[in-house]
Amino acid sequence: MFRGLSAFPITPADPHGRVDIEALGRLVQRLVKAEVDSIGLLGSTGTYAYLSRAERRRAIEAAAGYSRGRVPLIVGVGALRTDDAQDLARDAKAAGADGLLLAPVSYTPLTEEEVFEHFLAVAQAADLPLCIYNNPGTTHFTFSDALIERLAKVQGIAAVKNPSPPAGEMRARHEALRAKVPASFAIGYSGDWNAPDAILAGGDAWYSVVGGLLPAPTLALLRAAQAGNAAEVARSNALFQPLWELFKALSSLRVVYAAADIMGICHAEPPRPLLPLPQAARQRLAAALESLDDGGR
Amino acid sequence: MFRGLSAFPITPADPHGRVDIEALGRLVQRLVKAEVDSIGLLGSTGTYAYLSRAERRRAIEAAAGYSRGRVPLIVGVGALRTDDAQDLARDAKAAGADGLLLAPVSYTPLTEEEVFEHFLAVAQAADLPLCIYNNPGTTHFTFSDALIERLAKVQGIAAVKNPSPPAGEMRARHEALRAKVPASFAIGYSGDWNAPDAILAGGDAWYSVVGGLLPAPTLALLRAAQAGNAAEVARSNALFQPLWELFKALSSLRVVYAAADIMGICHAEPPRPLLPLPQAARQRLAAALESLDDGGR
Repeated sequence: MFRGLSAFPITPADPHGRVDIEALGRLVQRLVKAEVDSIGLLGSTGTYAYLSRAERRRAIEAAAGYSRGRVPLIVGVGALRTDDAQDLARDAKAAGADGLLLAPVSYTPLTEEEVFEHFLAVAQAADLPLCIYNNPGTTHFTFSDALIERLAKVQGIAAVKNPSPPAGEMRARHEALRAKVPASFAIGYSGDWNAPDAILAGGDAWYSVVGGLLPAPTLALLRAAQAGNAAEVARSNALFQPLWELFKALSSLRVVYAAADIMGICHAEPPRPLLPLPQAARQRLAAALESLDDGGR
Repeated sequence: MFRGLSAFPITPADPHGRVDIEALGRLVQRLVKAEVDSIGLLGSTGTYAYLSRAERRRAIEAAAGYSRGRVPLIVGVGALRTDDAQDLARDAKAAGADGLLLAPVSYTPLTEEEVFEHFLAVAQAADLPLCIYNNPGTTHFTFSDALIERLAKVQGIAAVKNPSPPAGEMRARHEALRAKVPASFAIGYSGDWNAPDAILAGGDAWYSVVGGLLPAPTLALLRAAQAGNAAEVARSNALFQPLWELFKALSSLRVVYAAADIMGICHAEPPRPLLPLPQAARQRLAAALESLDDGGR
């Protein structure tokens, strides 16, 4: 389940945080039709941190209903409190999740021991495979390889979603971690603009924001990387370059909300205080999308 | 209200996040008896980020009941979502708060414009004076002087709680901001080990973690700083030095929970995933507390 393209859709919701189930269904159906390898529901892009427990459950039930077992559903269950994350993990299983994604959401900065105990408690709460969500840009906690090695020995912890290492360090960093964890433990990467190269360097999965909206061209790029075709990866990745520039400048989250609107898929805005893209950026985005043939549009 | 010693107590709660009203009452009564200038309820030390809306309201009602108007009650109303922070601000006013403390809690990193709009929306939601809670260590957002200048023009935004600048930069940094904001706008400081020097450099308030537990010696130190008595500040601050070392190494939050236990005030633990202090650190802490005569113990 933690291999290949894991596509992370937004979770369209109204200004009060009520999830728009029909719009979410359209996003999920696009991903099922494109045959992504998994759906990463309620990831950072899915604004899990901004949604109530009840709305998160509604979103999972709806996505499970639309995907109907055709694509594995990996669900983000991060929360500031350990007991809340345990409840969310149990909810996710009951609502139809196939796997869990857990980020060490923090307010008071966490120690390694606190993160270890937190993951242990959540892994024990729900009997589903769990992926460590290493996302320092939002959680402000960075997993050391030693902590991942320790967590990989815990029953149920099956994978890690790491930020893609900088170009030039990918193979060395990947192989250093690979040597510390069981062969069955999957090492995947996020950070869309670097992830294809991380797959070329041996990564097992691409946890992708753009894949949640444009699954067809993203899958084509991933398959080239999985085949070790560096030339095709470079050619295909160049088509995404204008989009990557916007992701880097304005955040992938804000950009994909606007892209879903421009593409006519849904008209949601990100949860306040996050603001929609300004008009000038929307025009640049529309041009960037032109170079990407989605097939399903 | 945003001047002098603002004392920040912990919010004792059970492992499920249910606030222990009687233990909170003991903490509040100590602060009232010591005549602190304000109580900073549900600050970072008060684990506001880890408590539900209902429990936050219970804590405010209880604290207002115990303080009975004798000491102004400043209440933390931070939340990831703007609408939630607005609801918390309305709740705080209804439950007896005299002022608000608002931190730009973030998951997706926020832009200056997003923080400005967020503060505007919360300031408009509740008709209470509001203090900007600039706490980059937990929110991962740093206010520029320019943004504080802009927010100081918003109706109801009356103060800022800044981290204490490094020694040597205090006066210059304080005066640079002072020149940008109205004379009525209060500039206070947190970071207990540097705050007395920030008061000597002109700061209007000390937002204090140790003051929430040991109000008498903290007030004595503050009054020396307010009187401009640098020699007495240095002498008094030296008594706190063993405690500051523990704050820096283990975080003030974890340390004051253990201190409240050692002093017999309450036996709560911080919310998981935060872990209580290990035994060796508790022994160092007990020794550090010996040098501080609390009076009220």
